[in-house]
Amino acid sequence: MKLRFPTLLTIALACLTAVASAQSSSTPDPLPSWNAGASKKAIITFVEGVSKAGSPNFVPVEERVATFDNDGTLWAEQPMYFQLFFALDRIRELAPSHPEWKDTEPYRSVLDGDMKALAASGEEGLMKIVLASHAGISAEAYKESVRDWLKTARHPTTKKPFAQMVYQPMLELLNYLRAHDFKTYIVSGGGVDFMRVFTKQVYGIPPEQVVGSTLDAKFELVAGVPTIIKEGKLLLNDDKAGKPVGIYRHIGRRPVFAAGNSDGDIQMLEYTTVPRNSKDKRPNFGMLVHHTDAEREWAYDRKSHIGQLNKGLDDARARGWVIVDMKDDWSRIYPPE
Amino acid sequence: MKLRFPTLLTIALACLTAVASAQSSSTPDPLPSWNAGASKKAIITFVEGVSKAGSPNFVPVEERVATFDNDGTLWAEQPMYFQLFFALDRIRELAPSHPEWKDTEPYRSVLDGDMKALAASGEEGLMKIVLASHAGISAEAYKESVRDWLKTARHPTTKKPFAQMVYQPMLELLNYLRAHDFKTYIVSGGGVDFMRVFTKQVYGIPPEQVVGSTLDAKFELVAGVPTIIKEGKLLLNDDKAGKPVGIYRHIGRRPVFAAGNSDGDIQMLEYTTVPRNSKDKRPNFGMLVHHTDAEREWAYDRKSHIGQLNKGLDDARARGWVIVDMKDDWSRIYPPE
Repeated sequence: MKLRFPTLLTIALACLTAVASAQSSSTPDPLPSWNAGASKKAIITFVEGVSKAGSPNFVPVEERVATFDNDGTLWAEQPMYFQLFFALDRIRELAPSHPEWKDTEPYRSVLDGDMKALAASGEEGLMKIVLASHAGISAEAYKESVRDWLKTARHPTTKKPFAQMVYQPMLELLNYLRAHDFKTYIVSGGGVDFMRVFTKQVYGIPPEQVVGSTLDAKFELVAGVPTIIKEGKLLLNDDKAGKPVGIYRHIGRRPVFAAGNSDGDIQMLEYTTVPRNSKDKRPNFGMLVHHTDAEREWAYDRKSHIGQLNKGLDDARARGWVIVDMKDDWSRIYPPE
Repeated sequence: MKLRFPTLLTIALACLTAVASAQSSSTPDPLPSWNAGASKKAIITFVEGVSKAGSPNFVPVEERVATFDNDGTLWAEQPMYFQLFFALDRIRELAPSHPEWKDTEPYRSVLDGDMKALAASGEEGLMKIVLASHAGISAEAYKESVRDWLKTARHPTTKKPFAQMVYQPMLELLNYLRAHDFKTYIVSGGGVDFMRVFTKQVYGIPPEQVVGSTLDAKFELVAGVPTIIKEGKLLLNDDKAGKPVGIYRHIGRRPVFAAGNSDGDIQMLEYTTVPRNSKDKRPNFGMLVHHTDAEREWAYDRKSHIGQLNKGLDDARARGWVIVDMKDDWSRIYPPE
């Protein structure tokens, strides 16, 4: 049978329509590790509104700034911040060149593995550990030491490499936002140079979009080689009120989306979501990850020694922030290995 | 006459070839305000090499970071930094609320228009002027004051609005680099908050890509409104060795292209162009704008009180930096009004 041209066209059109319909009904879920529920719905509604031209919630692309805390928001933080594991390992590694540490606190406690004594040395002791492990070293050498550590170190209870203890649902959220032209930033109390070693590979976030606690640095030609040397003065403690300051200083724009998990993130969420005046109708989204899953991860909030979420749980109601319940909202925690 | 199919194809192909050839020969000059010569050729050779896949000088897109000084490199800086004009105008504007300034140096000199006495107050005096005009104010109010000033203030000799005293050839260079997927940054001794008010509109550079001298800031809810308040401590003097530090801190990558105009830019150019070791074959480009045009702009270098270019002229030879001669290399200075 010989088909005439119009007939062919009609058939082709029908085929195309069928394909389009199949594509549309099989559009992959952008957040497959998020269970259906209020949190997932709120995220999708917000992102679709922001990115749809003509929507009352439309936000121009250049203003689509999303900021994420790291510890407890993008990766785990128990039983202590992962960067502290690095610092302790580094003290052990450097100990042979510092024989005096055997008899000096807080180094002695670290070398003896006496975490209780280390904790007793307080903030001052911890700062000494941070400086001994992070300062007085070139930026290149520091980066190398973090890279090496990430390759070999394992979490004490899960035995996973630390970079595999990132939250799969949050990786999907980062990708989903970027697919809608958001620029995703990390804004964390963690050290900026520590995070920059792995954020591109692990989160898809390049170094220039990482804001973190910052030590001073100096520049010198060392034997003719341009060298950045990390120094011991803390320039930004990127926690609590330091977070909006870090955002202002680094990005120079208010985010429209911010995600955290502890009271240390309250000010970042305020900066993002509280209107400046009665005319400020800018759409915004604030989110707190609530660690409720003792089985698959950890459960902690109001009384935790790390990542305390107390005032934030109360503020969330008044401010309209979304509380993400890890146990209920997430179908999986970590990415497949 | 009825053409057969192969013939049609042959004709179509010939047409396409003709169109392609016409397009290629009429490709507009990306740097029309640059005269043909060594500087223009060096820029084009570098940018084409960096962005051509397979070229020995190819640089992956994410590493295409270009940093530009502002004063004297992107806009004029004579007879004094434009931000200083703003500071002085702001002191005059604020004077009614500070009756004590009439009898206190260095404010009195400013109010009397006695620039010689102001200069005699030295760096300490200037710092007082900078702080009185830039600190103790919310970020929003500060931004507003800069915006208002830019609208009305005029340069004392050209009578142009300051934002029109940008260099047309440099605007073309910024666009040319961005067309080849470079991320363009400003790295300037000027105040970061001052520059961010106009860099997007004037240079096409968004706030998050501006690095500059930085005052401390704090965050507070003021009557329930999230507020950043600029404070009086200088956190980064983004000049000389402060420039690579600012780049490291903000971008976290070494640039492959850097442009400046004074000895204050030497370290930024070193950081960009001096190899780290014998294996470091990364392509790079260093450039210094030499102010040689007393007629259309200003002519100054080794002995200038502002934008001194002395050591840089000597270093350029050893380092292979391109010296751009404003008089010879640029067919026009400012954009058409």
